Amino acid sequence: MSEISDTEDLEEIPPKNLEECFKLLSTEARQLYLSRTVPVLETPPTPLQFYRDYVSWNRPVLIRNGLKHWQALQLWQENSYFRDHFQDKSVTVAVTPNGYADSPVNDRFVMPEERNIKFGDFLDIIENPEKDPGGIYYIQKQNSNLTEEFSELLQQVPELDWAREAFDQSPDAVNFWMGDQRAVTSMHKDPYENIYCVARGHKIITLHPPTDLPWIPYRNYKPAVYKYSDSGFDIQDLPGPDVPWICVDPLNPDLINYPNYANTTKIQVKVSAGEILYLPSLWFHHLQQSHGCVSINFWYDMSFDIKYNYFNFLKNVKSVANLT
Amino acid sequence: MSEISDTEDLEEIPPKNLEECFKLLSTEARQLYLSRTVPVLETPPTPLQFYRDYVSWNRPVLIRNGLKHWQALQLWQENSYFRDHFQDKSVTVAVTPNGYADSPVNDRFVMPEERNIKFGDFLDIIENPEKDPGGIYYIQKQNSNLTEEFSELLQQVPELDWAREAFDQSPDAVNFWMGDQRAVTSMHKDPYENIYCVARGHKIITLHPPTDLPWIPYRNYKPAVYKYSDSGFDIQDLPGPDVPWICVDPLNPDLINYPNYANTTKIQVKVSAGEILYLPSLWFHHLQQSHGCVSINFWYDMSFDIKYNYFNFLKNVKSVANLT
Repeated sequence: MSEISDTEDLEEIPPKNLEECFKLLSTEARQLYLSRTVPVLETPPTPLQFYRDYVSWNRPVLIRNGLKHWQALQLWQENSYFRDHFQDKSVTVAVTPNGYADSPVNDRFVMPEERNIKFGDFLDIIENPEKDPGGIYYIQKQNSNLTEEFSELLQQVPELDWAREAFDQSPDAVNFWMGDQRAVTSMHKDPYENIYCVARGHKIITLHPPTDLPWIPYRNYKPAVYKYSDSGFDIQDLPGPDVPWICVDPLNPDLINYPNYANTTKIQVKVSAGEILYLPSLWFHHLQQSHGCVSINFWYDMSFDIKYNYFNFLKNVKSVANLT
Repeated sequence: MSEISDTEDLEEIPPKNLEECFKLLSTEARQLYLSRTVPVLETPPTPLQFYRDYVSWNRPVLIRNGLKHWQALQLWQENSYFRDHFQDKSVTVAVTPNGYADSPVNDRFVMPEERNIKFGDFLDIIENPEKDPGGIYYIQKQNSNLTEEFSELLQQVPELDWAREAFDQSPDAVNFWMGDQRAVTSMHKDPYENIYCVARGHKIITLHPPTDLPWIPYRNYKPAVYKYSDSGFDIQDLPGPDVPWICVDPLNPDLINYPNYANTTKIQVKVSAGEILYLPSLWFHHLQQSHGCVSINFWYDMSFDIKYNYFNFLKNVKSVANLT
């Protein structure tokens, strides 16, 4: 058995160029371990099952019935709970003209305007989408804002034991997300293992595996920020180096300029209230949401292991291949 | 945090060609997760710790004090035990003129002569190395020979609970190894997770990580087999396709013809009686042993996951790069 293994190499027709190598990487990912839909567990896995079958493989899984012990699943269903307890609490809100925070506009990478408003005023805006409050609002500050800004809510969304035990660490950040249905998070990847929990409403998450990197085009953008005034939104340049960012919209890809994007594996998943998505490190993801959707996500440090080593190699080979 | 992650790409100086990509792959492996020696655990890990910290990372670990419950650790220390119980038992033995079974000789890949002899006769040969028995003997048949040929010994080497639970499966094969100190296993890789247990004596195992593939030269050899007659060993051709095999000896590498082999990360580990090596899937390994060393190894099916997907990509890029 041992000695025959190396002869596997025999049968294969080797690829002729790097583009063929990239194509094999994507097609073999689908043959080996990816399905067109995210697999579903009806109950939370054990820590070992979770680590072995999902984290180690680097593939997503949707987990049902894992948040029944969260008070948030009851308390947060109506805005009245937040009004009763946090009406005057100051919160940081991202505001944009179109719902796209941290997203390309022409040759600029435009960050949202950050405003500090009362939670009660934010809820008024969410409840009255027909009124123009000067932009589209999203609580999405990713500085572990649950622990920093909403610590009163922490006990209603306790960390998930199986995830904590599997990763053998506390999360690096816990974030609270709430916003307008027009607020979209553009396609990107994170160097974190992500446990994404929806407490109210739903998210639609569009995914590509890391092995699709060759087909996902990046461009360099000048950093900028939205500024609102009486005359509406303006884009102001910021100092600093260019920002490389993905330049296709997965919902409406420009296949004329980026035809290789058609080679990606696109997986969409709806995560509804009470459900958890394990979103593996380095997976590309784009997020939409129902109006007033509330989510909590836990970021755990990823392992800088052979998978990360290989991902960097793929990035380097992509740069040598100089694909469009 | 999320949004800044993609900007990591900024700082790097991209490699100019594939050879530079391969070099970065090997050097980053050392920087990220490999050490020059195999890490040691003084007691067996929990299943989760084992899977999370070693299997998922695809890095080896040496485990001490994990075989104390094995009767083999007492019973097998002297040949008399085997004589008392298995003197007349027929065993399959690999015999070669030089200790190299399944190894290149000029342009041939030469398999050993297989002989069926009595265990008692095999022990006579091991105990009298100064006598010429017509070759160098090694019990190394890798068809799960412990379960097939030595099932009487199975209860003395029970499967390790933490490994079974971690992999969530029974081993695909359990092998029994015993032989002459001149018997060497040439460098190769297996598509298995390997739990390698030394019951008597020691093994010296020389390792390269899978990410060293670009630097490890292969050649195609004609299949052949040793045949012994009164005039000594002869090499006889076999039908069948060429066998691709590694054409450097890690103990004495030909760096004139294969200078790139110097770019590998070479890790050597001594596994002594009572110790266990976790030898991860797709790691290259070469084995030497003390005289009369007895080992048991468990092969568990590997995961055909993103790591395997990336390894195939690396193999394909290597073939495009056409390195020597």
